[in-house]
Amino acid sequence: MPLIVDVHTHVYPPAYMQMLRSRKTVPYVHDPSNNRDPRLIILSSDDDASIPLDQRGRPVDSSYWDINVKLSFMRQHGINCSVISLANPWLDFVEPAEAQMWAERINDDLEKTCATVNKAADPGNTLTLDQKETLFAFGALPLSAPSSESVVAEIKRLKTLEHLRGVIMGTSGLGKGLDDARLDPVWEALQETDMLMFLHPHYGLPEEAYGGPETTGRYGHVLPLALGFPLETTIAVTRMLLSGVFDRFPRLKILLAHSGGTLPFLAGRIESCILHERKFISGGGDVQGPQRSVWDVLKTNIYLDAVVYGKPGLEAAMTASGSDRLLFGTDHPFFPPLDSKDNSWPSVTTNYQAIHATFDTNSKTVADVLGGNAARILNLK
Amino acid sequence: MPLIVDVHTHVYPPAYMQMLRSRKTVPYVHDPSNNRDPRLIILSSDDDASIPLDQRGRPVDSSYWDINVKLSFMRQHGINCSVISLANPWLDFVEPAEAQMWAERINDDLEKTCATVNKAADPGNTLTLDQKETLFAFGALPLSAPSSESVVAEIKRLKTLEHLRGVIMGTSGLGKGLDDARLDPVWEALQETDMLMFLHPHYGLPEEAYGGPETTGRYGHVLPLALGFPLETTIAVTRMLLSGVFDRFPRLKILLAHSGGTLPFLAGRIESCILHERKFISGGGDVQGPQRSVWDVLKTNIYLDAVVYGKPGLEAAMTASGSDRLLFGTDHPFFPPLDSKDNSWPSVTTNYQAIHATFDTNSKTVADVLGGNAARILNLK
Repeated sequence: MPLIVDVHTHVYPPAYMQMLRSRKTVPYVHDPSNNRDPRLIILSSDDDASIPLDQRGRPVDSSYWDINVKLSFMRQHGINCSVISLANPWLDFVEPAEAQMWAERINDDLEKTCATVNKAADPGNTLTLDQKETLFAFGALPLSAPSSESVVAEIKRLKTLEHLRGVIMGTSGLGKGLDDARLDPVWEALQETDMLMFLHPHYGLPEEAYGGPETTGRYGHVLPLALGFPLETTIAVTRMLLSGVFDRFPRLKILLAHSGGTLPFLAGRIESCILHERKFISGGGDVQGPQRSVWDVLKTNIYLDAVVYGKPGLEAAMTASGSDRLLFGTDHPFFPPLDSKDNSWPSVTTNYQAIHATFDTNSKTVADVLGGNAARILNLK
Repeated sequence: MPLIVDVHTHVYPPAYMQMLRSRKTVPYVHDPSNNRDPRLIILSSDDDASIPLDQRGRPVDSSYWDINVKLSFMRQHGINCSVISLANPWLDFVEPAEAQMWAERINDDLEKTCATVNKAADPGNTLTLDQKETLFAFGALPLSAPSSESVVAEIKRLKTLEHLRGVIMGTSGLGKGLDDARLDPVWEALQETDMLMFLHPHYGLPEEAYGGPETTGRYGHVLPLALGFPLETTIAVTRMLLSGVFDRFPRLKILLAHSGGTLPFLAGRIESCILHERKFISGGGDVQGPQRSVWDVLKTNIYLDAVVYGKPGLEAAMTASGSDRLLFGTDHPFFPPLDSKDNSWPSVTTNYQAIHATFDTNSKTVADVLGGNAARILNLK
């Protein structure tokens, strides 16, 4: 059986669900009176008071919190290994005093889930990765904690947990974006521990970008999810670049969700705008611009998942970062089929097809993107 | 000499500059007291009261209004033919009662400029397109006029002008975006007259998308121009698609600026989000979603300029729409070299290089993208 690793797959552990149930503002979980699946209201645009609470947001079923459902999804789609991560909005909203406690609790929970599943699949630890079902994880960080010291401490603690391979992070950082100089100790800790940071969107764009609430209401989640999410990721990583994060931490490793948002496509335009910016010293101004080019960062610091649902995006990702930096993913449990979950998920098969269509002449590259790259980059064994 | 056609090249005719000089709110032109080049303040983010008026916005020189400067730029870069268009924000801001007058005045001015230049270059009309210097134009529309009838009338009038080959339009339409049903008569007139619509960004994204004024100030124009512009285009064309414009007007022809903004890269994600949208009838809801796929529209209705400054973007554009729908452009007079304008412009040579790098194995395709496609699609002769 070929090794297939899913690097983009989310969980809401039971403890996290319980915390969301206790909340009344976004993000929160509401149990409908009709005994149907709980409703998850995670985006502020979901929290539409004109919609009855029982129908607000999206239904979440056991695929979000029951690891056995994920394992069965993996079997159905030929995935032997998943690197699970807490879904958005992670711990961004947690009370500062409780942030560290929640990070430790969630990350210990992730470690335990991985250990239990891996032990059951291979009690004697005699099988290779492609012969069994394995889980690894990206940890959550206490970014709302009073000081970045808690974040650094958690990164160092994660390094000691057997199944943790990096961290997942949103775009708000300590609340002011990823170009915030107060994050330098965090980047330093990630670089030092050689832990990969999985950068993932959650906040999207202000609603006016789409024409206001009227438009968003008309088209449901399409504009915020299809366009807002990828652009949020692109803005976040571009702000890191512009502020010199990659100059100061040249060995930082970042996995960008959704094949980089739009970074591979816009890289040339970003580079051109930087070279033409009068505010930067290179353009006659007084602000230090980035010293390394976007192209260099894309091939040195950036990894891209292959969750882009089509050949044009995947080709751009490959040309920008290299096929040795592309990693298969599913975004499970989001985007389930709307008819029956018993069938294979189009959101997954579309990405499989795009990988085959892009690399069809080279089966080694297909195998690398599907699993080999992840095993090497994340040191999975 | 090979035929090279620039489909993305802007002008501010002298009459338009004069109108901008008479204004005190964005967009406006200010003549510095020190007798240097006038300052153009076109983006609301440019109009920063903390910056002295003499330094606000960007300097604009004769390359914006003197057609001889553009012709010399063309010669310098081997371009034989340019399809000139009014630069943003066109006539979007004009008083309703004056909109039609301004559209006619600008478009007559464009027609006259083309006629004069073409006549001088080939008095006997004996040369082929690749043997001479030629201008064509995209017209401006009176979109702020009290009724869309003025817009329709101007489209029909443009069809009678010898050198007009389509229209240029921003993303606001009649003020409420391009998914506004009141635009249907406009789409119908464009389809009927077989006039191409060049869709171009201007408004970008709300500043909060980048982290507010503090961030924008830090990085100058990089975030709004490199990311805001392309996303604005992508949102606009996606809203057209979602509202069924391409279902109702299947022969509409649209040229998207900057290789589609990010449309080729995000097409797969857009299509996936549409197929998973519970609000649409196809997902169990009650809203009619788009009937034609993004992929179909990309290969039938959309043309893309090749102004994307890199191979990854150009490859995605080619795969999404086809190399027979890609058209060379420069974005002149924007992005001049910051040192000396006497040298060739990196913003142009970067795009030449990307075209050669992407299609290097096929010189016919290179020639098509550089000029052949434009001549065929725009009926240039």
